[in-house]
Amino acid sequence: MKEHGETSKAPMVGGGISRGVSILDSVLRLVAIVGTIGSAIAMGTTNETLPFFTQFIRFKAEYNDLPTFTFFVIANSVVCAYLVLSIPLSIVHIIKSSARYTRLVLIFFDAVMLALLTAGASAAAAIVYLAHKGNVRANWLAICQQFNSFCERISGSLIGSFVAVIVLILLIFLSSSALARH
Amino acid sequence: MKEHGETSKAPMVGGGISRGVSILDSVLRLVAIVGTIGSAIAMGTTNETLPFFTQFIRFKAEYNDLPTFTFFVIANSVVCAYLVLSIPLSIVHIIKSSARYTRLVLIFFDAVMLALLTAGASAAAAIVYLAHKGNVRANWLAICQQFNSFCERISGSLIGSFVAVIVLILLIFLSSSALARH
Repeated sequence: MKEHGETSKAPMVGGGISRGVSILDSVLRLVAIVGTIGSAIAMGTTNETLPFFTQFIRFKAEYNDLPTFTFFVIANSVVCAYLVLSIPLSIVHIIKSSARYTRLVLIFFDAVMLALLTAGASAAAAIVYLAHKGNVRANWLAICQQFNSFCERISGSLIGSFVAVIVLILLIFLSSSALARH
Repeated sequence: MKEHGETSKAPMVGGGISRGVSILDSVLRLVAIVGTIGSAIAMGTTNETLPFFTQFIRFKAEYNDLPTFTFFVIANSVVCAYLVLSIPLSIVHIIKSSARYTRLVLIFFDAVMLALLTAGASAAAAIVYLAHKGNVRANWLAICQQFNSFCERISGSLIGSFVAVIVLILLIFLSSSALARH
């Protein structure tokens, strides 16, 4: 056992790095899954009913009042589902670290999902910004004075998404560095 | 000359594919440069002054009335500058198709720029959507009835950005497929 380890030291070190990269890949995918599912749930369950209402209108804010937030929830859910499906392939890479074409497939879909998730997160961020600050020139008033806890909740739900965006960039880099090493 | 070509046919075919991929890489970068610079200019030069005004207010719409559009112009300019700087490296890859670490560097920055550009484009798209449709629940009125040509212009300026997003995804895939082949 020890002798075998000594004779094939160089390939084992290379294999060890590749295996470490593959394990890191799986761990990062889990982090991104937690981030996206957290964002989707935080946004999807947000609603606030104000304690006053008139005869005709009940002041209530829900995430699906704004189509952008609906897109945010869908984008996060899709990316989360993809990441769950990609975990088995990532585990295969831990065992078989010389795999090339499956890594290529992962890089492509990681890039597509990166674009989808960034689109959802930043579109939502643009609307959240508007809800906080409003816009004088377009005569859009800030709604966060009234819907305070709604605004805090939707602002917080962006965090998980942006963490997942950074993780996806790292995943693309890790996969391609694994390809470059072989 | 011909003999040499015949003896080393297999590597030449492989090198030919790599060279073709590298040339495609450079061409796609040029397409993305045109897309981003077009978007930045189209958005940055947009303003509309309405033909009527009161004693106090002159109705004028400019891209920098909305911070999101300013971000859109900055994101497009940064990505365009990066793409211009990446062209020489892409040309090096045409000549030296076995380069690995420079490709890795390009993949990483392509992914970062993909995230930046998608963020700018989709944030702007969210605001453009709002300008067209408005939102009843948040009491944000559509401003496109008044600022018609302004709205057409900002809608159109999104196209170049989204084309560049697709091109960047393709660039990441091309670079990593070149890595996988070696």
